[in-house]
Amino acid sequence: MLPEKTIERLSLYRRIVENYQIKGEKSAYSHEIAKSAGVTSSQVRRDFMFIGTNGRANSGYDLDELAVNIEKHLLSDTPDKFCLVGVGNLGTAILAFFHGRRANLIIKTAFDKDPELENKIVHGCRCYSIDEVERAIKEENISIGIIAVPAAEAQGVAEVLVSAGIRGIINFAPVHLNVTDGIFVENVDLTMHFEKVAHFTRLVEK
Amino acid sequence: MLPEKTIERLSLYRRIVENYQIKGEKSAYSHEIAKSAGVTSSQVRRDFMFIGTNGRANSGYDLDELAVNIEKHLLSDTPDKFCLVGVGNLGTAILAFFHGRRANLIIKTAFDKDPELENKIVHGCRCYSIDEVERAIKEENISIGIIAVPAAEAQGVAEVLVSAGIRGIINFAPVHLNVTDGIFVENVDLTMHFEKVAHFTRLVEK
Repeated sequence: MLPEKTIERLSLYRRIVENYQIKGEKSAYSHEIAKSAGVTSSQVRRDFMFIGTNGRANSGYDLDELAVNIEKHLLSDTPDKFCLVGVGNLGTAILAFFHGRRANLIIKTAFDKDPELENKIVHGCRCYSIDEVERAIKEENISIGIIAVPAAEAQGVAEVLVSAGIRGIINFAPVHLNVTDGIFVENVDLTMHFEKVAHFTRLVEK
Repeated sequence: MLPEKTIERLSLYRRIVENYQIKGEKSAYSHEIAKSAGVTSSQVRRDFMFIGTNGRANSGYDLDELAVNIEKHLLSDTPDKFCLVGVGNLGTAILAFFHGRRANLIIKTAFDKDPELENKIVHGCRCYSIDEVERAIKEENISIGIIAVPAAEAQGVAEVLVSAGIRGIINFAPVHLNVTDGIFVENVDLTMHFEKVAHFTRLVEK
């Protein structure tokens, strides 16, 4: 099992490699990739050696080979299916951002307690009543839940998702979720990022 | 200067305290706040002692006092002004999420290279041509830039922002920004969070 930090870097390398490929490049040196990733060249070389890709002295790393090997370690052959709970501003934003973005990251269904949203399609994703979470997760074979509800509701939603069979959670609510062992929880707190930048930017100015 | 991790916790505590206040609570014990924040009770007590708030044995921490003291350390008396560069799906999502959310976090203006967006108001925020970044940042006294453009454009945008006088950056593009010392950069990479959850969730299932 790779460490979380390695997986984070592989995800970032993958996008960097894609950006080179979009520009028509065929190969890149470790120091170039390192600069884009904000890590050292030796870190890049270690990571690439680990996934079985070696660079060549005269041209660096073959980008096609790199892309294949990163994906082999990072991604699955079958798409990972997500569901979203909470189709407010943030939930809608998440649907918009991921709609059609990645063939392997698919938000299959969304849930909300607002009856007005029922059966509506928001950025390619059909919304259901929150009461249908269990049925939909089982029928669609969804493994990951995205929580975009207010903080006070997040723990309750997490429990419903876990009991419906979800194994991974991305939590956008600013609250720690207590879930059983074996459920992977990734927290993303946008307000915290904004407050943190604001705080340190003020210090810079003083 | 407080460490980054402390600032992150203060931001989280602040939301936890607000959630208690919304529920009509007047006080809370350190172990309750610790559970919501996903940290130890002793960490909570240390952090609160640091910001000058002491709990009482019979009722815990006074929530009003806590809120005032957290804000004093975390926030500024004057609102922090942000600008956004890139009004695509993600940029629009960010505008929607922060519109009216926080009196102290205000996205004053947005910039995009699409001429169709010029002078349009998106979720309360007026859009300008990217050519006006320098003028607008100076006129509006904006200190923080949000970068929500594709990776290949992010470094160029960062340079324009910094030369216009920006001191802090929130970077949503999946690429490391090279900026001069003294500019605070906070990276938020949504695709990375999603790929990471997908990766570890598959491991759980195996």
